[in-house]
Amino acid sequence: MSKKLTSRKENYSQWYNELVVKAGLAEQSAVRGCMVIKPYGYAIWEKMKAELDRMFKETGHYNAYFPLFIPKSFFSREAEHVKGFAKECAVVTHYRLKTSEDGKDIVVDPDAKLEEELIVRPTSETIIWSTYKNWIHSYRDLPILCNQWANVVRWEMRTRLFLRTSEFLWQEGHTAHATMDEAMAEAKKMINVYADFAEKYMALPVIKGVKSDNERFAGALDTYTIEALMQDGKALQSGTSHFLGQNFAKAFDVHFTSKEGKEELVWATSWGVSTRLIGALIMAHSDDNGLVLPPTLSPVQVVIVPIYKNEEQLNEISPKAEEIMKNLKAKGISVKYDDSDNRKPGWKFAEYELKGVPVRVAMGPRDMENGTVEVARRDTLTKEVVSMENIDKYISDLLDTIQKNIFNKALKFRNENITKVDTYDEFKEVLKNKGGFISAHWDGTTETELKIKEETKATIRCIPLNNEKEEGKCVYSGKPSHQRVLFAVAY
Amino acid sequence: MSKKLTSRKENYSQWYNELVVKAGLAEQSAVRGCMVIKPYGYAIWEKMKAELDRMFKETGHYNAYFPLFIPKSFFSREAEHVKGFAKECAVVTHYRLKTSEDGKDIVVDPDAKLEEELIVRPTSETIIWSTYKNWIHSYRDLPILCNQWANVVRWEMRTRLFLRTSEFLWQEGHTAHATMDEAMAEAKKMINVYADFAEKYMALPVIKGVKSDNERFAGALDTYTIEALMQDGKALQSGTSHFLGQNFAKAFDVHFTSKEGKEELVWATSWGVSTRLIGALIMAHSDDNGLVLPPTLSPVQVVIVPIYKNEEQLNEISPKAEEIMKNLKAKGISVKYDDSDNRKPGWKFAEYELKGVPVRVAMGPRDMENGTVEVARRDTLTKEVVSMENIDKYISDLLDTIQKNIFNKALKFRNENITKVDTYDEFKEVLKNKGGFISAHWDGTTETELKIKEETKATIRCIPLNNEKEEGKCVYSGKPSHQRVLFAVAY
Repeated sequence: MSKKLTSRKENYSQWYNELVVKAGLAEQSAVRGCMVIKPYGYAIWEKMKAELDRMFKETGHYNAYFPLFIPKSFFSREAEHVKGFAKECAVVTHYRLKTSEDGKDIVVDPDAKLEEELIVRPTSETIIWSTYKNWIHSYRDLPILCNQWANVVRWEMRTRLFLRTSEFLWQEGHTAHATMDEAMAEAKKMINVYADFAEKYMALPVIKGVKSDNERFAGALDTYTIEALMQDGKALQSGTSHFLGQNFAKAFDVHFTSKEGKEELVWATSWGVSTRLIGALIMAHSDDNGLVLPPTLSPVQVVIVPIYKNEEQLNEISPKAEEIMKNLKAKGISVKYDDSDNRKPGWKFAEYELKGVPVRVAMGPRDMENGTVEVARRDTLTKEVVSMENIDKYISDLLDTIQKNIFNKALKFRNENITKVDTYDEFKEVLKNKGGFISAHWDGTTETELKIKEETKATIRCIPLNNEKEEGKCVYSGKPSHQRVLFAVAY
Repeated sequence: MSKKLTSRKENYSQWYNELVVKAGLAEQSAVRGCMVIKPYGYAIWEKMKAELDRMFKETGHYNAYFPLFIPKSFFSREAEHVKGFAKECAVVTHYRLKTSEDGKDIVVDPDAKLEEELIVRPTSETIIWSTYKNWIHSYRDLPILCNQWANVVRWEMRTRLFLRTSEFLWQEGHTAHATMDEAMAEAKKMINVYADFAEKYMALPVIKGVKSDNERFAGALDTYTIEALMQDGKALQSGTSHFLGQNFAKAFDVHFTSKEGKEELVWATSWGVSTRLIGALIMAHSDDNGLVLPPTLSPVQVVIVPIYKNEEQLNEISPKAEEIMKNLKAKGISVKYDDSDNRKPGWKFAEYELKGVPVRVAMGPRDMENGTVEVARRDTLTKEVVSMENIDKYISDLLDTIQKNIFNKALKFRNENITKVDTYDEFKEVLKNKGGFISAHWDGTTETELKIKEETKATIRCIPLNNEKEEGKCVYSGKPSHQRVLFAVAY
């Protein structure tokens, strides 16, 4: 398989699809819409999970595990919720296979039909709130700050690796609180945790905001979101946190006795991010040579490649390389020494570029003479010859520099692609020729939102938190508006 | 809910069920046979996962993720395999729900029937080998050393929390090799990893062995197992590793070009342990007061409880307690300070006993005067007053002592409960009155094995690795036998 990718300019979508497969991140499976996350892609997910899990625990959360299946009747109890998910459910109806009458085939045993169908969870509010009913009696049982790492299934019609797949991996936090204020604060806290994770670890600048009524999670009163901008000017919703009010407590009859001895309904939040983040990571930073990974999430941060013509040269290089490795590892840096002899250095360079390894160190006979190494940066594709002395410190600093540079580049791009418009013509023109976020006045109605979506494919990505108040007129209806909101075409 | 448990002597099975629920480890869910793993139980699983994952990676393995669903036709391709799992499969037949005609109900949409039914994975050999077909072309692509952490579903008719549930969490390693020898070595390597994990972390002595034909994994040529003994004298299969030969390569047509340029079928192994290990951990060590956890897997290793009558006393104790906490944490020991004022110390003592916290430190006014603390061991239920000086070192050593003691106690019990018998009457007598492993001669036929099982419920747990050769006669048939095997009634 050639490593050469279609360029982003030529065909961004194809560039992405090729990159995911060629870098060994994921591939389509034999099951419609389900992906195989390959070892290299999964290693990135493991890094993400580790950081997120740590952040959740530092904010007082703990993990638990709830069933994969949801009885249909539970699923249907919250009216808005079922409306939102019913059209894309995998339904288990039987619990046994058998050999067919003619003995030639394996068939579903009609005698093993379930009394009640089970839905493969698309999200777990219903099964979790049916459980919380038994956990919550008094205000002393609150808050509950559970998170679950799990797989979920949404039967999507059009799928794309990482961005939209029928099965995906995610975490879903489900918290229960005694007061509305506490639940609202929790929902906001978690969108801030997500934003911190995106910016610090993914080097991905995000806009925090709240969703419009139309874009809200099915069953929520408020949905907070972090929205990121991809290099093709489309937005990508990267994480959401929902204030669910008392909707699920009502649906599952979850009450508690307050300090004052009153029976009250419990308040809820839920929040989640998924393997979709890997898609965001790829689309935000990578280039025509392959992946560009921020050092903090890169499975391998440094690769050392020896350049040699014979065994003797290799024997001179290897001890030096191993010393550097040892010093880097002592600093907590993950490093790989690739002295495999079945590939040429040029092939290896291209391979690690494709895989987005942040720093490549090359060491040849001349370096041995001069006490130097060649250090190449993946983000800028620049090379430098530096002294071997204190190379570990140099590389450690360089990794920080790369992390910051990747973030700043994405931030600059994002900021250059938020365009204020004041007329609908301008709106359409920017959308067509520039893309990115469009900051525009909107009359606040779902009707207008849907019309704009229908005519331009742009949706309201969010009403930014701490938005400036500004009087204006809706770009579509001309009706009065008190603030701008962000529109974009989104993944 | 009372914390008092039914005693093991009174009713071992009920003791177990009560303990799992009262210690907050897991509970039945609303979905038949599926459990909710509660935060405390999940925290133990997280500890197990972390150690196992580290051990897998240290032996060259990496993680990936494959689809939850398996097309029925894939599942059926390996004849023995489908025979083993067909009777307990959750089958997805539809992908959409809709509102019923009368608008009152949510029903399965008959128009959304899948062309081919999907099986919720009971194990992933088939979907993984259908994927490996595309990954493997040359000997250069081998070995593949993939592991997956996942949920699986087996529609069990009689379920018990952790031990046998319709859905459970596990890891499944699936490796591909160029030679038979390499695959056989891998299968053995992994049963050794499991045994090390059981003994070092779970403090659970296990017998490594190979399964009889009848007890082998569906589709394997050899199944290695680790077998542990529970306190009621029943055995519990705690992990298995399978040498799969070329069965799945044949079924999915997975060939590779060897170094010599020949087309050959690929050799396979698979191996797994599951949340069942939590059941083993509980059953092996716990007592009538509750859980007894080995320190290495205990979510909280040390709890500090202040004993005070007023705020003033608490204010004296807390700084000392916090200093001890800080020093323990610096040693990597997890510690909790429970100064909550809504429960009496006696209640807390019982609670942490129930939850199996290995070391409890109590600090009262008299301790403040004397510069001492009271240290209680969960495993022996003994208490000691010790000097506050170097208490962190004392506790750190004590945790090691407890870990060893729990293992040695279980080892002694296990060794005392391996009984050699030479007649079938003796076999039945030991089984009835003593239980445990029975070491007996067997003629090597499935026929005899099944008859013994039918008559006594005992099965062959394994033929121990490195078994001594010994001539004898089968206890059942009187036919010649060359070695003893281990029988037991098993979970």
